[in-house]
Amino acid sequence: MEFKLIKKDKHSKARLGKLKTAKNTIDTPVFMPVGTQATVKTMTPDELKKIGAKIILSNTYHLYLRPGHKLVKEAGGLHKFMNWDGSILTDSGGFQVFSLGRLREINEKGVTFRSHIDGSLHFIGPETSIEIQNSLGADIIMAFDECVQYPASYDYVKEAVDRTTRWAERCKRAHKDTKRQTLFGIVQGGVYRDLRLKSASDIVSLDFEGYAVGGLSVGEPKSDMYEILDSTVPILPEKKPRYLMGVGAPDDLFEGVLRGIDMFDCVLPTRIARNGTVFTKQGKLVVRNSTYARDFSPLDKECDCYVCKNYSRAYIRHLINTNEILGIRLTTIHNLHFLIKLMSEIRNAIDGDYLLELKEEFFKKYGYK
Amino acid sequence: MEFKLIKKDKHSKARLGKLKTAKNTIDTPVFMPVGTQATVKTMTPDELKKIGAKIILSNTYHLYLRPGHKLVKEAGGLHKFMNWDGSILTDSGGFQVFSLGRLREINEKGVTFRSHIDGSLHFIGPETSIEIQNSLGADIIMAFDECVQYPASYDYVKEAVDRTTRWAERCKRAHKDTKRQTLFGIVQGGVYRDLRLKSASDIVSLDFEGYAVGGLSVGEPKSDMYEILDSTVPILPEKKPRYLMGVGAPDDLFEGVLRGIDMFDCVLPTRIARNGTVFTKQGKLVVRNSTYARDFSPLDKECDCYVCKNYSRAYIRHLINTNEILGIRLTTIHNLHFLIKLMSEIRNAIDGDYLLELKEEFFKKYGYK
Repeated sequence: MEFKLIKKDKHSKARLGKLKTAKNTIDTPVFMPVGTQATVKTMTPDELKKIGAKIILSNTYHLYLRPGHKLVKEAGGLHKFMNWDGSILTDSGGFQVFSLGRLREINEKGVTFRSHIDGSLHFIGPETSIEIQNSLGADIIMAFDECVQYPASYDYVKEAVDRTTRWAERCKRAHKDTKRQTLFGIVQGGVYRDLRLKSASDIVSLDFEGYAVGGLSVGEPKSDMYEILDSTVPILPEKKPRYLMGVGAPDDLFEGVLRGIDMFDCVLPTRIARNGTVFTKQGKLVVRNSTYARDFSPLDKECDCYVCKNYSRAYIRHLINTNEILGIRLTTIHNLHFLIKLMSEIRNAIDGDYLLELKEEFFKKYGYK
Repeated sequence: MEFKLIKKDKHSKARLGKLKTAKNTIDTPVFMPVGTQATVKTMTPDELKKIGAKIILSNTYHLYLRPGHKLVKEAGGLHKFMNWDGSILTDSGGFQVFSLGRLREINEKGVTFRSHIDGSLHFIGPETSIEIQNSLGADIIMAFDECVQYPASYDYVKEAVDRTTRWAERCKRAHKDTKRQTLFGIVQGGVYRDLRLKSASDIVSLDFEGYAVGGLSVGEPKSDMYEILDSTVPILPEKKPRYLMGVGAPDDLFEGVLRGIDMFDCVLPTRIARNGTVFTKQGKLVVRNSTYARDFSPLDKECDCYVCKNYSRAYIRHLINTNEILGIRLTTIHNLHFLIKLMSEIRNAIDGDYLLELKEEFFKKYGYK
């Protein structure tokens, strides 16, 4: 993997970059759709390409449980298994083990937990996580971290930060084929500024090819997240890509980019789509509401996606109202297109040094304060 | 609408035709995918086109209840509402009123029934059915008939046959814009040969633009269905299209075509797809079974559809096993492609006078006795 910094915004910490993997070249800042179980829910890889997706995220925890990383390896790796020839990033499983796994027990070795599917007992530690991710074969893989829930005490977060650093070191050691797969380190530290700073410098000292800020957008106030980014991002090396994990609301994309973040992922666009909610330039719209039963206009008049060019709110509302799968396919395509397009507008704005103006205009229209 | 008979098979009653609607020209014999609620389940219109679908069926009963035919009319008609510029045939609602409606009460006027969705009270008679179908705006519409369940007494079926004829006459009278929409009559008569013959001549005497054989494939033995076709089809005018309603298993397509049928529709391919079952040239395959967990071959090695070119049984099995929508999207595409392709092979065989050989070969491989 190569990361090339192309340009820095004159008025903020925003930056343009190019991330080159073995598969393709990705313009950053980039939003990565989430394909938890080796599929971005409801979408084919072809559809993802059409809306401009070049990199997707998939979840180690889920693929480890079903269908199993060994099966994926037998299939020729995740790309081949799911028919996606763009780039893939896999998370480490850390986040899911802590949020989905039951009866989890953490010690220095790793985490023992019960599957959320059938209650069976499993163990993932730094070495296992890397082994699973090696089998899956994503282009970018993540260090196994402890993602602490919010709120958590200072003492506990401190302990988790130190453990995360020790685990990161072990991940680095366990990961052999560094040419085929690039390993990113993850900064933790909850909402505690000094722990974030400590975690950032500890992880940076281990020298990874990229850095993620994890453990944010887990329930803390948005202002806390922005402050953490303000203090943490400057510690990360300028020439390496920076990834804000699990963040993808339109305002957060702007705020992250303005603070120097290059990569984002989030289930938000696909999750709300399945609930009948879509992004528009005028704010969120719950198209499943009966208000739209006779509304023959597109989801978003300003949008040029396949859905907005061909279908009305009334039709999509009917599909969702009658539980027809095409309904949530259309809202999903639209929502992912919306965020991917927004990122391209953001990149253009960085290029032209008008990102702050774009943000103001977008926020005003969208209804953000 | 125009129907042109192109060729008759030398060794059977099979025939090749061209059905020209205002939208397109359809080669017959043809299989019509079912889009019950203004969507062929899981599919976009573009995907339907790619697999060669030129005409789909949609259900009057369902669209009348949701979103309502007036709304569809306001949207500019069903084609525009669902973004399908191919041909559409709507059924009359008769079949669903009898199979889904609750507490139905039949009299000469029509049928009063309760919605299967919310129990609300509704009435559909011949004039209402035509009015609804006029609003929906399909290219081919059907007369409102009484589809008797199987088994039913001779006396009851006789009564229903006579009523169906009287209703057919009223449908013809109610349908004004015959240029925009073509009305087909429906032959009923259960499994009683003489009632079928009577129904056929009565309906034919009313002079429709096309004729359907209804009330088959409702639970009677297959041999009964074939016998009914043997006796009924010859009564239908040679120069008009003949449509066997609700039939679509591969063997029945062959048997119907061999007896002179031109059009078919069935929910079978899409329904079994959602249950994880697919057609292959070697017979049906339940891809959701764990047998296929590590089977990296395509659904059907002889198939050239998008799914078979890009995905393995193992991947599709994983998707269905984890309730991922892409799984049933892929099985649906494959199954519809399978039947549409089969019909094109059948047409080629009629053209080359080797349909009986194709049938024998297909049945043997598929595992039919």
